[in-house]
Amino acid sequence: MNIRVGIVGISGFGGGEALRLIASHPSFELVYAAGEGSAGSPLMDRFPGVPDKLSELVIEKWDPTALPKLDVLFASLPTGSSAEALARVPEEVKIVDIGGDHRYIEGWSYGLADVWPDQIQGRSRIANPGCFPAATLNALAPLLTQRLIEPSNIIIDAKTGISGAGRGGGASKFGYAESNENVQPYGLLKHVHMPEIAKTIEQLSGGSAAGLVFTPHLVPMTRGELVTIYCRGTATTEQCLDAARSFYADRPFVRVTTMPPQSKWANGSNLCFVSYAADPERNLVIAIGVVDNLGKGAAGQAIQNANLICGLPVTAGLEGAPVWP
Amino acid sequence: MNIRVGIVGISGFGGGEALRLIASHPSFELVYAAGEGSAGSPLMDRFPGVPDKLSELVIEKWDPTALPKLDVLFASLPTGSSAEALARVPEEVKIVDIGGDHRYIEGWSYGLADVWPDQIQGRSRIANPGCFPAATLNALAPLLTQRLIEPSNIIIDAKTGISGAGRGGGASKFGYAESNENVQPYGLLKHVHMPEIAKTIEQLSGGSAAGLVFTPHLVPMTRGELVTIYCRGTATTEQCLDAARSFYADRPFVRVTTMPPQSKWANGSNLCFVSYAADPERNLVIAIGVVDNLGKGAAGQAIQNANLICGLPVTAGLEGAPVWP
Amino acid sequence: MNIRVGIVGISGFGGGEALRLIASHPSFELVYAAGEGSAGSPLMDRFPGVPDKLSELVIEKWDPTALPKLDVLFASLPTGSSAEALARVPEEVKIVDIGGDHRYIEGWSYGLADVWPDQIQGRSRIANPGCFPAATLNALAPLLTQRLIEPSNIIIDAKTGISGAGRGGGASKFGYAESNENVQPYGLLKHVHMPEIAKTIEQLSGGSAAGLVFTPHLVPMTRGELVTIYCRGTATTEQCLDAARSFYADRPFVRVTTMPPQSKWANGSNLCFVSYAADPERNLVIAIGVVDNLGKGAAGQAIQNANLICGLPVTAGLEGAPVWP
Amino acid sequence: MNIRVGIVGISGFGGGEALRLIASHPSFELVYAAGEGSAGSPLMDRFPGVPDKLSELVIEKWDPTALPKLDVLFASLPTGSSAEALARVPEEVKIVDIGGDHRYIEGWSYGLADVWPDQIQGRSRIANPGCFPAATLNALAPLLTQRLIEPSNIIIDAKTGISGAGRGGGASKFGYAESNENVQPYGLLKHVHMPEIAKTIEQLSGGSAAGLVFTPHLVPMTRGELVTIYCRGTATTEQCLDAARSFYADRPFVRVTTMPPQSKWANGSNLCFVSYAADPERNLVIAIGVVDNLGKGAAGQAIQNANLICGLPVTAGLEGAPVWP
Repeated sequence: MNIRVGIVGISGFGGGEALRLIASHPSFELVYAAGEGSAGSPLMDRFPGVPDKLSELVIEKWDPTALPKLDVLFASLPTGSSAEALARVPEEVKIVDIGGDHRYIEGWSYGLADVWPDQIQGRSRIANPGCFPAATLNALAPLLTQRLIEPSNIIIDAKTGISGAGRGGGASKFGYAESNENVQPYGLLKHVHMPEIAKTIEQLSGGSAAGLVFTPHLVPMTRGELVTIYCRGTATTEQCLDAARSFYADRPFVRVTTMPPQSKWANGSNLCFVSYAADPERNLVIAIGVVDNLGKGAAGQAIQNANLICGLPVTAGLEGAPVWP
Repeated sequence: MNIRVGIVGISGFGGGEALRLIASHPSFELVYAAGEGSAGSPLMDRFPGVPDKLSELVIEKWDPTALPKLDVLFASLPTGSSAEALARVPEEVKIVDIGGDHRYIEGWSYGLADVWPDQIQGRSRIANPGCFPAATLNALAPLLTQRLIEPSNIIIDAKTGISGAGRGGGASKFGYAESNENVQPYGLLKHVHMPEIAKTIEQLSGGSAAGLVFTPHLVPMTRGELVTIYCRGTATTEQCLDAARSFYADRPFVRVTTMPPQSKWANGSNLCFVSYAADPERNLVIAIGVVDNLGKGAAGQAIQNANLICGLPVTAGLEGAPVWP
Repeated sequence: MNIRVGIVGISGFGGGEALRLIASHPSFELVYAAGEGSAGSPLMDRFPGVPDKLSELVIEKWDPTALPKLDVLFASLPTGSSAEALARVPEEVKIVDIGGDHRYIEGWSYGLADVWPDQIQGRSRIANPGCFPAATLNALAPLLTQRLIEPSNIIIDAKTGISGAGRGGGASKFGYAESNENVQPYGLLKHVHMPEIAKTIEQLSGGSAAGLVFTPHLVPMTRGELVTIYCRGTATTEQCLDAARSFYADRPFVRVTTMPPQSKWANGSNLCFVSYAADPERNLVIAIGVVDNLGKGAAGQAIQNANLICGLPVTAGLEGAPVWP
Repeated sequence: MNIRVGIVGISGFGGGEALRLIASHPSFELVYAAGEGSAGSPLMDRFPGVPDKLSELVIEKWDPTALPKLDVLFASLPTGSSAEALARVPEEVKIVDIGGDHRYIEGWSYGLADVWPDQIQGRSRIANPGCFPAATLNALAPLLTQRLIEPSNIIIDAKTGISGAGRGGGASKFGYAESNENVQPYGLLKHVHMPEIAKTIEQLSGGSAAGLVFTPHLVPMTRGELVTIYCRGTATTEQCLDAARSFYADRPFVRVTTMPPQSKWANGSNLCFVSYAADPERNLVIAIGVVDNLGKGAAGQAIQNANLICGLPVTAGLEGAPVWP
């Protein structure tokens, strides 16, 4: 079965990773790639390693009203710049929005694909989670649904590779020399990912209000993301691990480990690793979540969502093992 | 068609990359993984991201006389430690030796797969080229066969990521703090890869004696390799590029670019990029070759060779695009 | 004034940084350097950039009973291996132990030099703080002494460069390829630095019991350390900053910033940066501390302690600005 | 003695390193810092680790006709933008131009400070060498003056950290994610540093025409530079080493090593390491030169030149040992 797909925002890191994954997807055929900066150039100029079968494709100027026949459009645009344009995409084109404009917006399903695949299947407008929410919510979902932690008191300390700051941001603020050999905290007590994390926590915990502290840090690596989450709860480490094992029993992309996972374990893949360490006497549960910020944190989960809305096996095109070392 | 394959040397970087590629190969089924250090552990303990279908496999102690039924064995052992053992592998098991012991040894074909696939098809003992030879020889082959450069006067300045020093070497000498932010030249005027480069150059140039200078440098990155080669010749840049385009016209893994390629373009893939810049008035041709030292420089080319000796399409299992960024 | 100093543990990272700082110290003269692994080699073999005046020094085998005449000995030995040997050093030799064996041990003063210099001056046995305690305690001291946070509920999320794992550890477990592009949490709910942090917090808070959660992470950089500390308290951001400004008014090495500091700001120096962000309505204070793990986190603070016990200006030999970028 | 100095181009990497070195210089007092982008900000906003004594200084808008009383001005402006402005600086202000506009321009002395200090002392207009020339010419000078190599046939393969591309360039083209894990050759058969290398080689070899091939590569590190130079000559390794030892006998900043030096050996210092490997039977001499591109390759050599023109000891303010690891 051939499903015709397109990407808008091809020059960003999320769009580029979508291209990589689509290129070896068994059912998706890339027929459209658009981007502002690079419109007019052959795909190969921008991606010298692009597979031969795509080497003739030319990057087009993004125009939502002049699309070729498409089954699915992947949008990876900067936050704030997709809402209006995507509203003009024809109804019959399914959309997975990797950008942030449609999360918890009416008419769009929040694509937390390993947690609630049933709420995604059959839909046609999917808002892909941000990278921090992907790592955080996958780690917390089993604890929240089992009421093993208090939703009102959650501290998320996040570490991400520099590609998480985006290509635009990267060019203007995150030069190599300044970012290398550096840990940079940013956005203390305010960060754009907070609302989608809070809203999802409330849903998963049956409506209890979420109380969150979220501190992101840039660490000197290209890809990878690890969140260390400090929660209140009296469960043991084993109870937390068991809750996660059972929650993710049928989920091929989430792995529960007894050792604390390392960010690199997921690089280049759509995997998510979660682990837990608890001290019931101190009312403490530590949850750790690991994703590739461009994989499960962006394009990987987007393909997974597209598989779900197209009725494909959820693992189609996503079976590649992580790149190690 | 299911081809039963095994890997010995699974804990090294070359063996681990072979595992990654085999895991998503359409025709290879991994039925055996052996390693000294890690014998007895489940594959998943060592490779937390290994695909589910392989998660039950246990690493075995390497014993060439007690192999399961195998069609192909990939060997990735330290130089000096494979010759004796591989001699005891049953005749009917095809072998691709990623290690250095069998290059230009009688009874073994040198697996320079993009240059002479015809000399590989149908064989059963393949000595995979080293990573520096892979990058160098792919860049030089078109020039040598077209007699555009003098084989007697070739200077190869090579830059490789630290994984090129191997896992054993890496653990004992190349700690993170010492290797990071550092360029380290080594082995001046002597290097173990020289003979296979010299012998191949002589073959490609119709028997003329090769004169080589080879200087490898470790640069602070995990993967990737770029060789800058200074040759004598009066061809123009365009003539060199044309020679390469025509030489590699039917080779899916070698790309000829007009821009000088960057090492990262190949990372995670089996691609090789070559380019040229010449100044005929000064009798100078610069050739550049780029590979992932663990891809085309090791496991990628090994899979390609296995495809050739098994009669599979040469691209089987190797179609993944490079990881970027 | 010439003060004769020695270093034992010269081949470790802490010892090497002590060497660098002593080499440009206006009053210290290095007359003795000892190390197990490298005994017998000229200092210059191990440190090719060592200043000319020290280039003749030969590394000796460590023997506490056969020291030359020394005023101060800097010891930088692996935890567990200094207690017995340092007990045999003659009484009249002052000791600054960069290693972990003498922290909160009778007869030794805990060298938290920016917090309680008065408790260090005039002493002759100083236990230098660990790198995580240095960053953490400098950030917390103003809040604890002003009772702005609860000592019983402190979560420390620490990120350190790989040199923090030590040279020995580094060589055996932290190869370049495995540590690069990776965030590695370790020692969850147990870490060797905890007791000295807890004891100091109790002292600073007037005896209240400390309740700590401490999670260290290795990030892919050579040097640098940042701790993000989550505390309970109702002070405002401005109150926290003011407490720190007043606490450190006469301390040349601690800088209070309104922007969250980056780890690289301190690299190569003895500086410590602290900052705060608070949300009184949520009973939350976030404290951030930054040090170079080999500077203020090891050898820098050791020199500062030696200055104090020798009656020198505290900044002697420590005035170099951080290396940027 | 207090010498009043200023820096223009403070926001670039070269200007920033000059600031760091001046801050701990025993005779230089920084009284003026200018920069386009950051004019009006306190120095401390841009350099949070700047020494206390300079923390009140405010960055001024660059105006060569409105300078305070200055003895020496360090200029670190992008190539092309200093010639006109520096011409308007009053005669009595000595200038060291770290930028490229005045190299081999009449009225300016080329500041190759370890090779011909006598040509620098007493002058008042110094053109500081580029970073590639610094490493290359220091390595070649002993061979050229001793006629051990042919000036007409020199191949320079250079590897530099990303700060070598400058802060401006860095921001726009060399984002972290794209430059990390990447070796990037550039400017094949054309590079702006060539003329000053060629002219100096001709001077050092007594007028023979230089024939050069120069290939620079960016490697993923912040600082550091290593050049591998392939020459024609029949000297032995020992003869080359001896020539360099004798040439640099009284030069405190150049070290001749028998082991090939590593780029990191010089980081943070004004040192230059040179080494040689020769094969007389093949008419081959390999020379290696190592510098910190911001040290000897820019600000370090600039301070050294300023010491020379001010009649100070050449090592004043430059005695700091390299940062390791």
